[in-house]
Amino acid sequence: MPRTETVAVEAAAVPGSAPRKKRVGVGIVGYGIVGRAAAEILTAHAAEIAQRTGISVTVTGICRRRVQEKAAEGAVNGLTAVADWREVTGAEDVDIVVEAIGGTDIARQVVRGALESGKAVVTANKALLALHGEELFTLARERNLPLGIEASVAGGVPVIRAISEALAADRIRAVYGIVNGTCNYILTQMEEHGLEFAQALEQAQKAGYAEADPALDIDGLDARDKIAILARIAFGSAVHVAEVPVTGIRHVTATDFHYAHRLNSTIRLVASAERTDGGLHVAVEPWLEPRDSMLAKVDGANNAIFIEGEKVGAQMLYGRGAGGGATGTAVLSDVLQIAQQIARGQSVPSILSGFHNAQRKPLLPRPRPVAWFLRLTVLDKPGILARTAEAIAKQGINIDSVIQEPNFPKDRLSFVITLEPAVDSTVRAAVNAINAFEFMREPALLLPMISSKEEHV
Amino acid sequence: MPRTETVAVEAAAVPGSAPRKKRVGVGIVGYGIVGRAAAEILTAHAAEIAQRTGISVTVTGICRRRVQEKAAEGAVNGLTAVADWREVTGAEDVDIVVEAIGGTDIARQVVRGALESGKAVVTANKALLALHGEELFTLARERNLPLGIEASVAGGVPVIRAISEALAADRIRAVYGIVNGTCNYILTQMEEHGLEFAQALEQAQKAGYAEADPALDIDGLDARDKIAILARIAFGSAVHVAEVPVTGIRHVTATDFHYAHRLNSTIRLVASAERTDGGLHVAVEPWLEPRDSMLAKVDGANNAIFIEGEKVGAQMLYGRGAGGGATGTAVLSDVLQIAQQIARGQSVPSILSGFHNAQRKPLLPRPRPVAWFLRLTVLDKPGILARTAEAIAKQGINIDSVIQEPNFPKDRLSFVITLEPAVDSTVRAAVNAINAFEFMREPALLLPMISSKEEHV
Repeated sequence: MPRTETVAVEAAAVPGSAPRKKRVGVGIVGYGIVGRAAAEILTAHAAEIAQRTGISVTVTGICRRRVQEKAAEGAVNGLTAVADWREVTGAEDVDIVVEAIGGTDIARQVVRGALESGKAVVTANKALLALHGEELFTLARERNLPLGIEASVAGGVPVIRAISEALAADRIRAVYGIVNGTCNYILTQMEEHGLEFAQALEQAQKAGYAEADPALDIDGLDARDKIAILARIAFGSAVHVAEVPVTGIRHVTATDFHYAHRLNSTIRLVASAERTDGGLHVAVEPWLEPRDSMLAKVDGANNAIFIEGEKVGAQMLYGRGAGGGATGTAVLSDVLQIAQQIARGQSVPSILSGFHNAQRKPLLPRPRPVAWFLRLTVLDKPGILARTAEAIAKQGINIDSVIQEPNFPKDRLSFVITLEPAVDSTVRAAVNAINAFEFMREPALLLPMISSKEEHV
Repeated sequence: MPRTETVAVEAAAVPGSAPRKKRVGVGIVGYGIVGRAAAEILTAHAAEIAQRTGISVTVTGICRRRVQEKAAEGAVNGLTAVADWREVTGAEDVDIVVEAIGGTDIARQVVRGALESGKAVVTANKALLALHGEELFTLARERNLPLGIEASVAGGVPVIRAISEALAADRIRAVYGIVNGTCNYILTQMEEHGLEFAQALEQAQKAGYAEADPALDIDGLDARDKIAILARIAFGSAVHVAEVPVTGIRHVTATDFHYAHRLNSTIRLVASAERTDGGLHVAVEPWLEPRDSMLAKVDGANNAIFIEGEKVGAQMLYGRGAGGGATGTAVLSDVLQIAQQIARGQSVPSILSGFHNAQRKPLLPRPRPVAWFLRLTVLDKPGILARTAEAIAKQGINIDSVIQEPNFPKDRLSFVITLEPAVDSTVRAAVNAINAFEFMREPALLLPMISSKEEHV
């Protein structure tokens, strides 16, 4: 059936156009969840794709680790997987290489090797792009080859194209949102079931959302890599990820959700990047979000990204941020766009031409005061509130409210102070002073908070 | 400044590629809100666009009605507007024609004329596409010219590209959401301020969201045209708009919002299209939406569209659905994509190739039972509930709840019955019987209702 369709389509080629290639080969390096999903979806939908685009796009090479032990499993199209990625990137019948191996070492070699062999590349590897994006995009540009990265942020949600499109005629002011599904799953589990962080993490691991070593997710590093990619596309600026201030979610407790609830809010890990006078502000941190905001409605492992353009206003894209189906589909959206370029005999990549030539803009502090949620966990004794309030007053910051629930044990009492808008440096000075008090059982938890959905950036 | 930028970019052209055109001319026919915004944004951002894309895209022709009276106003680029659109579509230095004249008669001639003169076309005209899409896309295909329609649905929200992208490798199950900003503005005004429909409509007109003749919006016809376009792209099926069942919002009252609130819900006008066995189900109707759903959070004149793919899962795109900035930016996203194709010397349009060759699939009834909200306004007297309940029972439908607030006047009492899931035909049979009762003051209001955000389709 697929065969017949393809032949019929080839016979109906539009006459009188440039030299074309009607068969495009895809080599997949790394055959885990994403690589396998991409191969399987492409193979399952080959006939429809041929009918719609007039070209036959097939998997012509697969490289996987431990190829011997897994040989019996078989792959798609009756292909035998190879162990050496060079056999895929160098193959005559491979036009597009999908890098799905993960990590930043071999993956970098694979992408470089493929580009050097004249192959287009598609990758979902945000860590690789955040760390070596400069080098790889420069190489792609020198070789005049497309490098597709739609799948690197927010899985199947087409945020990279939405930004490129918004950018086409508009100027982007800010990009922000929930880009790590694991953290969002943990936070919504805590919110819905009153769990402590460790319990919610365990559930995320059981549900397959968190790795055995969850540090990249829960410490905000994965979100940081993704916002660096988005900032680069939106603002044409290379972002050195080591310079991005990052706060993860491991110090958020069930008690914090309890107090957040009292404030008609919840807690979400938000990555943000915005233009400021003379540079960019980029950050990853948990925020107190009003419960009726769109970001508060993003539950489970979903992602949601706001794009604010000067002319187009605020846009939001929402969807599954991970999983083979979503990420595999995003990989294939790049593969098929590139395949169509190849089929048209186009020599210049149209994918992400705006991503090249990024110039470093300085990373600056948050450009405006925000309100704050400050949770202290103390050994209860007289004078705590007076001394805390004095430390806050000393920085010229106004207290908005103090909330203390009953029934905490005397040796571990948690209460919350909300602060009127203040800039980061003064509020952090106050918190440093407070953390030095002998009654503090653990460092205070400090979260920025917003009172309306427009206030994020 | 723009000039210098352009020259610098031209000098840096990538060597060794196909014959190119580095200057692309845009002719704008119709100089109202959208046409003017597109011209002004393109002119204001010319330097940045040249820097990013390496091509100079400029407005080279403008046609406007009543050109004499408005001559003094001037246009962009020192251009003098002309009154005859043929002077724009036929101009040597116009490569892309933006149809921004509106309506379906002259607009159709303009698009046909432009394509027949070998020009690419971009339009935001959903009524034109819904009525004459078949003819215009066939002509574009015959002439091998792109026809860009991103701006025709949901203003600046890139829903057309998101569907095309999701489609690239996935199969779409359903597309639905809020696509008419005027209705959404009216409904949110009613919700927030307890207004009656007529008051909220007046406010929408004052705020510039509703036309003097608001019928196209409030009767759901604009939403119908838009869902027909989305259905065509998502399912490759031409939809005859006259066959789409449409219910507008003019019979929704402040009392309905009151009862909706009691049910922890609100009311939104939802357009939907989904695959069913053997065809499509397409409809426009107000729904009772749970207040914590994403669609309930869409306020004011915003739009939100869900796209459900088999592999990619549910995605949602949200943003401003109208206004010069948003729609102008969407028009320009097509203009710039086509300009890049022209600059590359590409002969085959890559925009919306999947939109062609749509085959008519039958429009079928809703393929599953849904729960219902039924509001009756009656002349109060004994036996009303018994007779109503009997009419419902006769169709084999279960009543879920009866809600009646006190303090209604006896001669105009409104109460609500919610029904357990039932198919449209049986519930409509029951409502027809009820409407025939002599105590009914006006036809009953029947709204489908959902109990979770996943249940829409």
